[in-house]
Amino acid sequence: MNATLITIGDELLIGQVVDTNSCFISRKFGDCGIRVIERTSIGDDAGTIIATLNRVLQQSEIVVITGGLGPTKDDLTKHTLARYFDSKLVQDPATYRFVEQMLARRGIEFNELNQAQALVPECCTVLPNRNGTAPGMWFDTEDGKIVISLPGVPFEMEALITDEVVPRLVNRFALKSIIHRTMITFGMAESVLAATIADWEDALPKELHLAYLPNPKAIRLRLSCYDIEREKGEAMIGKAFDELNAIIPEYILGYEGASVAEEVAKILYQRGATLAVAESCTGGKIANTFTAMAGASEYFKCGVVAYANEAKQALLGVKPETLNTYGAVSQQVAEQMAEGVRRVGQSDYAIATTGIAGPTGGSDEKPVGTVWIAIATPTQTIARKMTYGQIRIQNIERATTSAINLLRLALLDKIDTATSDTIL
Amino acid sequence: MNATLITIGDELLIGQVVDTNSCFISRKFGDCGIRVIERTSIGDDAGTIIATLNRVLQQSEIVVITGGLGPTKDDLTKHTLARYFDSKLVQDPATYRFVEQMLARRGIEFNELNQAQALVPECCTVLPNRNGTAPGMWFDTEDGKIVISLPGVPFEMEALITDEVVPRLVNRFALKSIIHRTMITFGMAESVLAATIADWEDALPKELHLAYLPNPKAIRLRLSCYDIEREKGEAMIGKAFDELNAIIPEYILGYEGASVAEEVAKILYQRGATLAVAESCTGGKIANTFTAMAGASEYFKCGVVAYANEAKQALLGVKPETLNTYGAVSQQVAEQMAEGVRRVGQSDYAIATTGIAGPTGGSDEKPVGTVWIAIATPTQTIARKMTYGQIRIQNIERATTSAINLLRLALLDKIDTATSDTIL
Repeated sequence: MNATLITIGDELLIGQVVDTNSCFISRKFGDCGIRVIERTSIGDDAGTIIATLNRVLQQSEIVVITGGLGPTKDDLTKHTLARYFDSKLVQDPATYRFVEQMLARRGIEFNELNQAQALVPECCTVLPNRNGTAPGMWFDTEDGKIVISLPGVPFEMEALITDEVVPRLVNRFALKSIIHRTMITFGMAESVLAATIADWEDALPKELHLAYLPNPKAIRLRLSCYDIEREKGEAMIGKAFDELNAIIPEYILGYEGASVAEEVAKILYQRGATLAVAESCTGGKIANTFTAMAGASEYFKCGVVAYANEAKQALLGVKPETLNTYGAVSQQVAEQMAEGVRRVGQSDYAIATTGIAGPTGGSDEKPVGTVWIAIATPTQTIARKMTYGQIRIQNIERATTSAINLLRLALLDKIDTATSDTIL
Repeated sequence: MNATLITIGDELLIGQVVDTNSCFISRKFGDCGIRVIERTSIGDDAGTIIATLNRVLQQSEIVVITGGLGPTKDDLTKHTLARYFDSKLVQDPATYRFVEQMLARRGIEFNELNQAQALVPECCTVLPNRNGTAPGMWFDTEDGKIVISLPGVPFEMEALITDEVVPRLVNRFALKSIIHRTMITFGMAESVLAATIADWEDALPKELHLAYLPNPKAIRLRLSCYDIEREKGEAMIGKAFDELNAIIPEYILGYEGASVAEEVAKILYQRGATLAVAESCTGGKIANTFTAMAGASEYFKCGVVAYANEAKQALLGVKPETLNTYGAVSQQVAEQMAEGVRRVGQSDYAIATTGIAGPTGGSDEKPVGTVWIAIATPTQTIARKMTYGQIRIQNIERATTSAINLLRLALLDKIDTATSDTIL
């Protein structure tokens, strides 16, 4: 069983909006055994919508369209679908009442534009939208295929997929499983990794498909199998990853969305240890990375974003003479920040960053992209200098990952040999 | 002149990766007058790649393909393009030397897989990739169309588009301008906004296209014009937005990517005023939002992420008896946090948050999603209670936006009438 996703909206074609809807639907469909074979984004144009529908209905049993259902004049999807299925627009009484009540609660006038939201092609099944004014629509074609139209606002679309679309599809079809598992590796270049595990790769059962997913932070290895019984597929993938684990144990960070921050959180949690963070150039990103994960209050004590030098002194006890002698971006200040926040936060471990994120503030001696990171542990304080590039956001992100990884290396007793190359 | 973008990779179809590459290329192409009419994502499959190329070359003068150029076995794009253009793979000496040197610098072995990265179809023009091992490739078809293949790693692709692809396209074609301008409105429902500005919309010159882009935070209005002289197009759009400004002045937040944080940063900067932030449930997100913007050091003094109660006392001077009497999530603690960080940060303004982000930690009286936000100004301290939902990440994001907006309302002297409805 396969599907094609069509996202509609000029905003997708001019690069104003990133298409996250396709990503969500692909995951939900994969979980219940439907394979997405194409995702396409097209403009708000009736002719293009119809041509695309004709084309993708040749290749897929299920077609999901998102977007173009708003109350305003640039939204064409509903009228185009009515034309495509040769059906007239009629009022759906349940939607009419729902929209009327929803707007009344919010104190918004129930005007003509909103009333038109309750009009749907007569031939469709209405999928009620609890979160907005545009209902979802389900069309059965004459040759047994399915076309589903959903609003483009992500949280409206997500609820409709989860509550309406997936249950109906699972109910109608006997779907087999699709399984994906991803192992996160760290510290080995893609080509070296591929050469190291070539024999393992060649010996994989033919049902398993291997993909390499490199990014600057990690190489992810994904094993997939399609149209299989879940238990059998999971057992095959489990066995393959166990074998791989024996080949490159020290390079494996974890599975699925594993990140250095999750790894650090897990170790701290298991040991009952606590963390405090002092940030200058990363500006709260490290604290935010930890506190975005559920359970952070178990180990995260506090963070200090000490942007101004006075804040470094008042909140962290950095000495004025150190700031004067070495400057704010220096090994000595990074170390005092880490020790200071460890003391004030009464934590076991501490991370500190100080650097020049850019675009201004650099000098010949300390160009934009220079960052000192430091770790304070119960037994020692260690700092490393990193040199990144010119782009502020990237410098903040890279310093965040490097600093968290330096703590990870410390927790694993590998900090003494950590150089800026092995940190990241 | 129009283009189709093809992104290749199973990871895009299973929802493991969001396609941000298309977004970047669409913006860069739009800036130089090339209109993207379709973006499609397909799997790592030679037959599908060829069928898609055949199809989109019917509709576009330019086709850009990203992905599938890595050194590993799952990457098929280069071999498929060689087959498509009936061309054999030959070694590109410049790429060979570059990859060899790059790997030597990083201490990575120059093995067979890496050497194969220097093989390219004989008929293509090589686009050198400064940031990775896979070069870009430019193919001219017999009927004057262009097919460009780029690596899928975003920062490699971005540099190739900016440094190689766009300059060559601009050089080859006499491109007309495409102009998009977006106005950000805030505080009026889409249907009400559309009804309010209907006359203005109907009177727009026919060259201008209006789109509504709603999201939970704002309704964006985009005006676009295609194939026009830049000055003329900008003048038309400027005039239209000026007229709109006269109709709904109090609902306009700004233009393009304007956000409440940018608005606050601008006001603080203009007044020479400073900011400090005390965060509990938002965990550094507010500090991070401000410090991610260039120039933050002009007004941002410090942030404190006071997760533990001891940190709220030690760093912010929150009184133990207040914590005991009212609990950490309370108006009184939010206010003391705001006043405390304003004092310790020596700032003019301060923001504070304390709440239950979830998924655990809620009670009947204070369920998950309860957040108190407070603002301290030179003349007063004000707090508001917000009630969000169950999802941790969303609660953090919504509390961040609400808290920054409460400061915005304070800076605009509208804080006294601010209710949780008008905050967000």
